[in-house]
Amino acid sequence: MTKSLASQHCRPLPEGTPALDAVHVAGLLDQLAVGWSLASDHTRLSKVFRFPDFHRTMAFVNALAWIAHVEDHHPDVEFGYNYCRVHWSTHTVNGLSLNDFICAAKVDGLGA
Amino acid sequence: MTKSLASQHCRPLPEGTPALDAVHVAGLLDQLAVGWSLASDHTRLSKVFRFPDFHRTMAFVNALAWIAHVEDHHPDVEFGYNYCRVHWSTHTVNGLSLNDFICAAKVDGLGA
Repeated sequence: MTKSLASQHCRPLPEGTPALDAVHVAGLLDQLAVGWSLASDHTRLSKVFRFPDFHRTMAFVNALAWIAHVEDHHPDVEFGYNYCRVHWSTHTVNGLSLNDFICAAKVDGLGA
Repeated sequence: MTKSLASQHCRPLPEGTPALDAVHVAGLLDQLAVGWSLASDHTRLSKVFRFPDFHRTMAFVNALAWIAHVEDHHPDVEFGYNYCRVHWSTHTVNGLSLNDFICAAKVDGLGA
């Protein structure tokens, strides 16, 4: 049985690790909740979350920061009064790695 | 004596309040610390802050959120591992209001 993405943890990537190819990316994207989208060049995995007020937005931002801290993998984030847009990518591979999908699954696990 | 921007508080803007004109914007920009820049159409006031690590970035993001809460004026924010970009604007005037400069001055007061 395949271990769910959300139950895995990010691992350091050995130097020279390539970015995931399109087939792997498509397979992993299927394992995430709806709403995640890929940049056209497959270098970034993004999702926007919407909230009824600023306090819930900030609570989400901080939960997201906790995931980033635990996994030592840090997203780029945009937020305002009632939204938070999360972007995962892996700079060292110039694209997407399994770590991005693990973190995306953990963000889905927040239940926002 | 003119009251400093940082010592003022945001006020609700009556309906129909116009955006600040270029002369007022220039005068207020002069009262802020260096680093703030205007969008070319003068609808947005932005500054990027850089940090040595994610924890300091998040501490700043939360201090910024506190200012937004107290002033009931909410920026758009972009952040990642070591940076936070803050954008102030006033949607109800389709541009900049005094409230944006008051909040920018309070952010400068964080001493980042």
